[in-house]
Amino acid sequence: MKIGLDVLGGDYAPNSTILGAIEAQKVLKNDQRIVLIGNEEDSRKQIIEAGIDPSLFDYIHAPENISMHEHPTKAITQKPNSSVAKGFELLKNGEIDSFSSAGNTGAMLVGAMFSVKTIPGVLRPAIATNVPKLKNGYGILLDVGANADCKPEMLNQFAILGSLYSEHVYGVQKPKVGLLNIGEEEEKGNILTIATYPLLKSNPKINFIGNAEGRDLFTDQADVYVCDGYTGNVVLKLAESFYVVTLKKGFKDDFFDRFNYERYGGSPILGVNAPVIIGHGISTPEAIKNMLLLSKDMIESKFIDKIRSAFN
Amino acid sequence: MKIGLDVLGGDYAPNSTILGAIEAQKVLKNDQRIVLIGNEEDSRKQIIEAGIDPSLFDYIHAPENISMHEHPTKAITQKPNSSVAKGFELLKNGEIDSFSSAGNTGAMLVGAMFSVKTIPGVLRPAIATNVPKLKNGYGILLDVGANADCKPEMLNQFAILGSLYSEHVYGVQKPKVGLLNIGEEEEKGNILTIATYPLLKSNPKINFIGNAEGRDLFTDQADVYVCDGYTGNVVLKLAESFYVVTLKKGFKDDFFDRFNYERYGGSPILGVNAPVIIGHGISTPEAIKNMLLLSKDMIESKFIDKIRSAFN
Repeated sequence: MKIGLDVLGGDYAPNSTILGAIEAQKVLKNDQRIVLIGNEEDSRKQIIEAGIDPSLFDYIHAPENISMHEHPTKAITQKPNSSVAKGFELLKNGEIDSFSSAGNTGAMLVGAMFSVKTIPGVLRPAIATNVPKLKNGYGILLDVGANADCKPEMLNQFAILGSLYSEHVYGVQKPKVGLLNIGEEEEKGNILTIATYPLLKSNPKINFIGNAEGRDLFTDQADVYVCDGYTGNVVLKLAESFYVVTLKKGFKDDFFDRFNYERYGGSPILGVNAPVIIGHGISTPEAIKNMLLLSKDMIESKFIDKIRSAFN
Repeated sequence: MKIGLDVLGGDYAPNSTILGAIEAQKVLKNDQRIVLIGNEEDSRKQIIEAGIDPSLFDYIHAPENISMHEHPTKAITQKPNSSVAKGFELLKNGEIDSFSSAGNTGAMLVGAMFSVKTIPGVLRPAIATNVPKLKNGYGILLDVGANADCKPEMLNQFAILGSLYSEHVYGVQKPKVGLLNIGEEEEKGNILTIATYPLLKSNPKINFIGNAEGRDLFTDQADVYVCDGYTGNVVLKLAESFYVVTLKKGFKDDFFDRFNYERYGGSPILGVNAPVIIGHGISTPEAIKNMLLLSKDMIESKFIDKIRSAFN
């Protein structure tokens, strides 16, 4: 198993990425190797400086970086030696089994769709994020930004993608799917959610439990919350800001701790032909470590095959 | 000045409404009278039992109630003796200067539009809510549920309505308007927000500061946040649930306290020809009191005239 990591992605790269890779490597098995994609010489040097044997890692030299503010499509096509472009080339050629980066989200999305491509039958990939449950564990919210505008059939597919992720990567049996909406009753909502409801209700591949409101997001009502990418992104960033406030105020609590992206590492792009994970721009070594371990879980669970079967 | 109150609206009515009215009356001037719309005999009895002179209030007998789950349009038309229908009849006839209720939100919205009607030039009224700022005071978020689907021109009008509310009722000079969106740049967003941005940018009646993300909602970035009613409602209920969590966890803080709807009383319907306020279903006497004082502020500020002028 080869777990690809963009060494240059993220505000604190390459320090945070190399340190995170070192920590992840300690808990991986011998045949689970991390492939460091970035400036090879710098990477080796940093690992040696940390007192670690550099032969524990694989290296791909890709010295260029795509910054946070570059235009995704332009950057991917004009910078073939960037760590992100190189990572997707390797992923496409099967030289790595997963690719993750805390860099430019748009470039990761475009890169995934241009290289490994969308799984046949999937209309549009979606970005999923974890939402902590009050009691314990996580729910899944998608889409959180890949598709600002959605059609009902897309939300119906997100429900399948999220359910498979919840089941195979998080081990939830028959994950409950809720449609993020503004009322409990079937007829409530906007044009999109009203048209989506009957699709979800009649979808035999999911366990639909009906509408979920904003206040239900952290409850056990559902395991998978489905919405358009505009709404999901607003919700995600609002929830993050709440977590930051509780941190600043010094309120420590296990529930609030589970908002911390460091604990789960990153947000997968669901619906493409390989495990691809986007990390938070401010990823710490702990976050990078968990992003790599999540990559490993996604590879091991053969999650991509499950999606292919579902959309076959 | 006559401040109308639906005595029968809300989960804890009529206890909470009468007790709230008693508290509000204590701080009102002699010529600011509360009109209690509900079962007159019951209202008088309750006030006397509380040791208060019943002649301090006006009474309108309207013994029927519209419950939370009744269909708004049907209920309003089929129950002319309901407190909500009667309240809007009085408001339409100028017998009261404002009307507020912690009852059925849909019935309040339909009642307002059927009776006092939308202000000429306003496409659709919007429901505004307070969002606490981290430092102090409140921002305004609208729409939070009157219009699940919106057109760009509606959001452009919400910006004006929210600005006038922020300025004249909350005393904010040149309130800053932010478009709730999923990126800072002008070209980011969904079809609705991308089309709305240039309208806001060229609107001389507002102080537009650009896009605001979910994480900016509690900052000083803007005083008025504009979005469609589906998104606003999801955000509102999510924020409420956060507040409830902090309460349950015992985290006391002035910022979290300001999430408490009791402190500002209710959400106004902006864009109709009279001050109309919708209270939270679980309104306590404290919430009812503040809803009545907000009603008084809305009447005193001649806020409705300001809207009429703006849309003239």
